[in-house]
Amino acid sequence: MKKMGVGILGATGMVGQRFVSLLEHHPWFEAKWLAASDRSAGKKYGEACHWRLRSPMPASARELEVHECAPGNAPSLIFSSLDSKVAGEIEKEFARAGHVVVSNSSNHRMDPDVPLLIPEVNPDHLALLRIQRKNRGWRGMIVTNPNCTTVGLVMSLAPLERAFGLAKVLMTSMQAVSGAGYPGVPTLDILGNVIPYISGEEEKVERETQKLLGQLVDGRIRSGQFAVSAHCNRVLVEDGHTESISVALRKKATIEELIEAWRGYRSVPQERDLPTAPKHPVVVREEPDRPQPKFDAETEQGMAAVIGRVRPCPVLEFKYTALSHNTLRGAAGAALLNAELMKSEGYLD
Amino acid sequence: MKKMGVGILGATGMVGQRFVSLLEHHPWFEAKWLAASDRSAGKKYGEACHWRLRSPMPASARELEVHECAPGNAPSLIFSSLDSKVAGEIEKEFARAGHVVVSNSSNHRMDPDVPLLIPEVNPDHLALLRIQRKNRGWRGMIVTNPNCTTVGLVMSLAPLERAFGLAKVLMTSMQAVSGAGYPGVPTLDILGNVIPYISGEEEKVERETQKLLGQLVDGRIRSGQFAVSAHCNRVLVEDGHTESISVALRKKATIEELIEAWRGYRSVPQERDLPTAPKHPVVVREEPDRPQPKFDAETEQGMAAVIGRVRPCPVLEFKYTALSHNTLRGAAGAALLNAELMKSEGYLD
Amino acid sequence: MKKMGVGILGATGMVGQRFVSLLEHHPWFEAKWLAASDRSAGKKYGEACHWRLRSPMPASARELEVHECAPGNAPSLIFSSLDSKVAGEIEKEFARAGHVVVSNSSNHRMDPDVPLLIPEVNPDHLALLRIQRKNRGWRGMIVTNPNCTTVGLVMSLAPLERAFGLAKVLMTSMQAVSGAGYPGVPTLDILGNVIPYISGEEEKVERETQKLLGQLVDGRIRSGQFAVSAHCNRVLVEDGHTESISVALRKKATIEELIEAWRGYRSVPQERDLPTAPKHPVVVREEPDRPQPKFDAETEQGMAAVIGRVRPCPVLEFKYTALSHNTLRGAAGAALLNAELMKSEGYLD
Amino acid sequence: MKKMGVGILGATGMVGQRFVSLLEHHPWFEAKWLAASDRSAGKKYGEACHWRLRSPMPASARELEVHECAPGNAPSLIFSSLDSKVAGEIEKEFARAGHVVVSNSSNHRMDPDVPLLIPEVNPDHLALLRIQRKNRGWRGMIVTNPNCTTVGLVMSLAPLERAFGLAKVLMTSMQAVSGAGYPGVPTLDILGNVIPYISGEEEKVERETQKLLGQLVDGRIRSGQFAVSAHCNRVLVEDGHTESISVALRKKATIEELIEAWRGYRSVPQERDLPTAPKHPVVVREEPDRPQPKFDAETEQGMAAVIGRVRPCPVLEFKYTALSHNTLRGAAGAALLNAELMKSEGYLD
Repeated sequence: MKKMGVGILGATGMVGQRFVSLLEHHPWFEAKWLAASDRSAGKKYGEACHWRLRSPMPASARELEVHECAPGNAPSLIFSSLDSKVAGEIEKEFARAGHVVVSNSSNHRMDPDVPLLIPEVNPDHLALLRIQRKNRGWRGMIVTNPNCTTVGLVMSLAPLERAFGLAKVLMTSMQAVSGAGYPGVPTLDILGNVIPYISGEEEKVERETQKLLGQLVDGRIRSGQFAVSAHCNRVLVEDGHTESISVALRKKATIEELIEAWRGYRSVPQERDLPTAPKHPVVVREEPDRPQPKFDAETEQGMAAVIGRVRPCPVLEFKYTALSHNTLRGAAGAALLNAELMKSEGYLD
Repeated sequence: MKKMGVGILGATGMVGQRFVSLLEHHPWFEAKWLAASDRSAGKKYGEACHWRLRSPMPASARELEVHECAPGNAPSLIFSSLDSKVAGEIEKEFARAGHVVVSNSSNHRMDPDVPLLIPEVNPDHLALLRIQRKNRGWRGMIVTNPNCTTVGLVMSLAPLERAFGLAKVLMTSMQAVSGAGYPGVPTLDILGNVIPYISGEEEKVERETQKLLGQLVDGRIRSGQFAVSAHCNRVLVEDGHTESISVALRKKATIEELIEAWRGYRSVPQERDLPTAPKHPVVVREEPDRPQPKFDAETEQGMAAVIGRVRPCPVLEFKYTALSHNTLRGAAGAALLNAELMKSEGYLD
Repeated sequence: MKKMGVGILGATGMVGQRFVSLLEHHPWFEAKWLAASDRSAGKKYGEACHWRLRSPMPASARELEVHECAPGNAPSLIFSSLDSKVAGEIEKEFARAGHVVVSNSSNHRMDPDVPLLIPEVNPDHLALLRIQRKNRGWRGMIVTNPNCTTVGLVMSLAPLERAFGLAKVLMTSMQAVSGAGYPGVPTLDILGNVIPYISGEEEKVERETQKLLGQLVDGRIRSGQFAVSAHCNRVLVEDGHTESISVALRKKATIEELIEAWRGYRSVPQERDLPTAPKHPVVVREEPDRPQPKFDAETEQGMAAVIGRVRPCPVLEFKYTALSHNTLRGAAGAALLNAELMKSEGYLD
Repeated sequence: MKKMGVGILGATGMVGQRFVSLLEHHPWFEAKWLAASDRSAGKKYGEACHWRLRSPMPASARELEVHECAPGNAPSLIFSSLDSKVAGEIEKEFARAGHVVVSNSSNHRMDPDVPLLIPEVNPDHLALLRIQRKNRGWRGMIVTNPNCTTVGLVMSLAPLERAFGLAKVLMTSMQAVSGAGYPGVPTLDILGNVIPYISGEEEKVERETQKLLGQLVDGRIRSGQFAVSAHCNRVLVEDGHTESISVALRKKATIEELIEAWRGYRSVPQERDLPTAPKHPVVVREEPDRPQPKFDAETEQGMAAVIGRVRPCPVLEFKYTALSHNTLRGAAGAALLNAELMKSEGYLD
C-alpha cells in the first residue's frame, strides 16, 4: 500500500516532534510537509527544530523544508499541534481550504459541531462532522482530541460509565513538564517544587470529560450526567501525568468488578486493529505502588491508561491512581489514532 | 529564667536534627541529652550524626555524647522522633520511668488515652492525660503530634469546622522526601517520578484527622462526624507537603467567609504567645499559583499552614491547596509547640 | 548616617532581584530607582517582577515604579545587571551622563581601561579609572566584576599566587541554573542531564582570570603569567558553582602551606570591614566530601569561596574543589562589594 | 546453536538487573542461575528483586529461584556484580571450584595476574590467564572489567595512545547516581546538589587507566607511561557518566587527526562482530553542546563512548567531553563483551 503523505502544523514543538517520531515507521501515513512559525519557515527541519526526544530525529525529516502555516500545497490530511494562541484561525483556514485537520489544540474542542474524540470512548461522535459541514460550509473539517490530562481520566472512566454509570468524579493531577511544551517550564520554577496551578487546565478537564462521555442525540452532544472536579498540579516529571481519582457510581459494584470492567474494555480501535491502538487500552497493575510515570508511562507504546491502587473511598465510593503518557496518548498518539479511525471510516478518501 | 534541659530520642535522624536545630535558640528548653540507636551510642553527636540541614549543626550539640535510648539519667522532658519500629516500647519505658514523652512517632497516636495534639486545634485534649495516668499507672506520660500530612490538612480544616461544620473531606497529597527520613527515598526511585503510595499514610491521615477534630466527652474522644478520604503521593520536593483538598460543609458559606475564617483563626498558642507559635497559624495567599513548597514552606518559620486557590468544587463544595512544612510544623516544631502548651498548663512542673 | 539612594538596571532579572534583596538592609545604600526592559517600564516593581528568591520581596521595593533604562533622573550610583545584548551601550550612556556604573555585565570587563575587580584580589586596579576618564572623557565611570564562574576560581587562586606564584591552572565547572537567569534553562534540557557547554563561558573564565591576577603597570594591566584552561558544564543545581581545580605553582609548597595561605588570606575589604565583606574570604573545609552547593553555598552570607579536598595532582601539582555562590559572590554581592570599596576610596563622593 | 546457560552473582542489584536484561535476547548466553545475598536466597527472582530498569523484567527471569552465592551446581560461566565488600572471597571461591568468573567488581582488577579488560583496547591482556592459572592453581579463572568511570576515559584515550602516544591526562567526571547501586544515593544528598567525592573512585580511575593502556611484557603488565589525574563528582543524572578531559600527546597532532583517530578506531570486537560490540566504539558528535547523558548515553545500545567539544587546551594540549553509559558500557555490557571475547578465543570451551 502506498503511504499517504501528511502535514504537521507546529512540527518543531514538543508534540510536533512526537508526530514526526511516530510517523517515522507508520504503515499508512508519512510526514511529507512540515510547518511551523515564521521564525522557522524556510529552514531545513534539522536546523529549525531543537529536537528534545531521547530517540534521534528521523533522518527522513531532517532535510524537509519547514513551511509557513498556510494551506497552499499542503497535503489533504493535516495534524495540528499549534499553540492555542494561533491554532484557532489557522485550523479554520485549513478546513475551509479543504483539509482534514486532526488537531491536538484546545481551540475548537468545545465547539458543538466539532468532534472531541477518543477512539476507544466515543467513536460515534465522528458523526458530528455532517453537522459541522452543514454549519460551516467547509470543504474540509476539524476533529480534535482532548487535553493531555483529560485523556487518562476519561479512559479510566469510560469502562466504569459503560458498566456502572458515573455519578461523581474528583481528580487531582500531578502533571509532567513536557505538557507545557518547549522551552516550557523554567528549571527555577519547578526544581524541588510543586506548582499547584496550570492556567485553564481544570476547566478543560471538567468540560471535556463531560463532552467525551456525553451522548450524541439529534446531532448534538448531551453532556455526561455526572459531576467532575479537577485539581491540576505540575511536578518534576518529564513524561506521564499521574492522577489520583475518586469516583461514585450509579450501580453497586465491587473492586473486582471495576478491575474486570477495565481489563475487559475493548473498543473500535482494538476491533479494527488500528496501527496505533494499544492492545489493552486500560492496564491494571496489582503492585501497591504503581503506576509510576518513570516505569509505566511507556506501557503499550505510551497509548494505554495504566491503573493501580484500586480501593474504597470513604467520601465517594472508589479511589485509584491512573497514569497516561501526556505527549503520546495525551497528544500526538491521540491525534494519530483519531486519523486512523477516520481513515477506517472512509473520512480520508 | 534558667532553661530546662531536655532530651531527644532519635536525635540523629531528620526530625531529630530539626529538634536540635530548633532548640539551639529556644527561650525555655535546651537540648542536654541526645540518644539514638546503639550504632551511634557512645560517639559524639558531631561524629554520629550525618547532618542534613542547610543551616550548620549547632556548636553546642557537636560535643554532646550520644546515649542509648534508655531512661536512666535522662532529663524529665523527652522529645521522641524514634522510628516507629522501636518507638512503641521505648516511649512506654520512659513514661513508666517518670518522663514526659512528647512524641512525633505514630505508635501511640491512636491510643484512646493518649492526646493527639495540635495546640491550635484541640488543646483541651490534653485533659486525656488524667485518664492516661489512671489507666497506665505511669509516673510520666505520653503526648503525641500528628503525622506530617495530617497537620496541614487539619490546620486548614479546623477553622472551617469551627465556623461551618465539616461534612466531607477529600485530600490528595504531594509529599516531600524529607518525610521519609534519611537515607529515606533512593534517588533512583524518585528522580523524574511520582510514587503514588506511602505505606500506612492514608490510613493515618484519615484516622488522625477524625481524632484531632473530635470532641472530648466523658474522658473519651468522640471522632469528628465527617468522612475523610486521602490519596498520598511522594514527589521530588525536599521539604513541604502540598495538598489538594475538597470539602463539603454543614452550613452555607461563601469563599469570602472561608478566607475570613482562616485569616481570623487564633487559638491558645497565639493567645499565650508560645515561643514556637506562628503569629498566623493559617496564611491565605491570593496569587493564582500559590502556595508552593519551594517558596512558601518556610512561612512563619515553617509553622503555618499556607492556603491558596480557594474556589468552588463541582463535586463537594469548595476546593483549595494547602501547604505545610513537614519536618517543622509536621514534626519537630509540632512536638515543640506541644511541649510549650504543656508547660503553659503546668504539666512540666 | 543618611543612606545613599542607588539605582538598579535590570532590576527584574535574577541578579537584579539579588540586588534588591541585598540592599533591603544595607547600611550605606538604598534601592531607590529600579529600571528594566520596556515591557516592565511604568509598572510597579511588585507587578513587573516575577520574584524567584526564597526570601520574600522586600516591601519597600514592591511599590517602586520601574523605569526605562535611561539616565534622566536616576541616582548617581547605578548597579547594572543588564543582559549583555543591551548592557554595552546603556552602561556607556549612563557613564557619559555622569553616573558611576558598577556592572555585573560582561560587555566592558575586558576593556583595557575598565577595572575588572574583586576587592579582595586586585583593589589597586581601581586606579585604572584615571585612565578611563582620560580616554573616554566621561563624567561618570564603569567598574565591573567578573563572571560568576571566574570569581570562585580567582578567590581560590589569589592566595596561591601571592604566596607561591601560579604556573598552570585547569578548572572544570559544574554550574547552577540560576547563572543562566530567568526563565533561563528549560527543565526539559537539564532534568537528569548535564550540559557540557555554556556559550562564551570558558573564554570569559580564561581571560578574566588573567586580567584579575595581572599587574597594573604604567596604567595598563599586564596579564597574569600563567596558563588557564576551563571546561564549563551546567548541572541541576539551583545556586552555587562547584569547580574541580588543578594547579601547578612556581615555588615548592606543601598541602599544609596551601591551606594556611587560604585560611590566612585577608585583604582590603576585611581590613576596612566593608559591610558586604566576608570575615573569611576563603573557607577551607576538612570533610572528605565538601564543599557541596546545597550545604555550603551560603557560607559567609554567600560571599566566601569554600575550598575542600586539597590533595596532590599527578598531572599538575595540587588539586582541590572550590565552591562559590554564583548570584551572590558571583554577581550582585560582587558588585555591591565593589561599590563599597569605591566608597571607601572616595570614588562616590 | 544451543545457548550456554550462565550464572549471575549479585543478580538483584542494579548491575545484576542489567545483566538479566541484556541476557534476555542474547544469541549465545542465557541467564539460568541467579544468586544474591542470603536475604534474597530461596525466593523467586520476581519477588526478591526490586526491579529498577525502565524496561520490564524479562518474564523468563521472574520465576527463577535466587540461590546463595556459593559454587555448588552453578553454571561454568559466572558474571559477578557483587558488592566489593564480599566479592573478593566469593569470586576466588568460584574460580577455585572451576568457574570462569567474569567480574564487574573492583576487588581483583589490580591483581597482577588478573586481566583487566576492555575488548577494544587490550584484548591481548587475556594472555595473563596463563600466569593466573600457574600462580593460583585454580581450575577456573577471574577476568575483570574496569570501573564505570574508567571505561569512557580509556575508550577515548586508546585511539590517541595508538596514534599519537599519551603524555598527560586530566579528567573531571560528573557521574550518574546509578553508579552507586540501589538504594544508593539518598535523594536528600543529591537533589539540587553536587557531591565532589566518591570514595576510592579517583584512585581506581588513575590506576586502572594505566593498567588498561599498559603493555603485556614477559607475563606482566607494564603500566602506561603517562600521568593520569582524576576529579570525581556525583551529579543528579540517572545513567551516563560525563567527563571533561584534557590531554597532552607525545606526537604533534591536529584536532582533525584526533577526530579521525577516534572515528576510525576499530578493534577485535568489531572485527569478530561480537554480539554486544558497538559498530562504532567511539562516536564523535559535532554539535557544540553534546554529548549529554540524557540524549547520548544510549548511543550504540549504550556500548559506545561518545565524544564532543574537541578543542585546544591552553594548559595541556587538547580538551574534550566524553560520555559513556555507566551500567552498560561501564558494567554489565562490559563484562558481557569480555565473555564474548573469551568465547571467541576459546576460553569458554
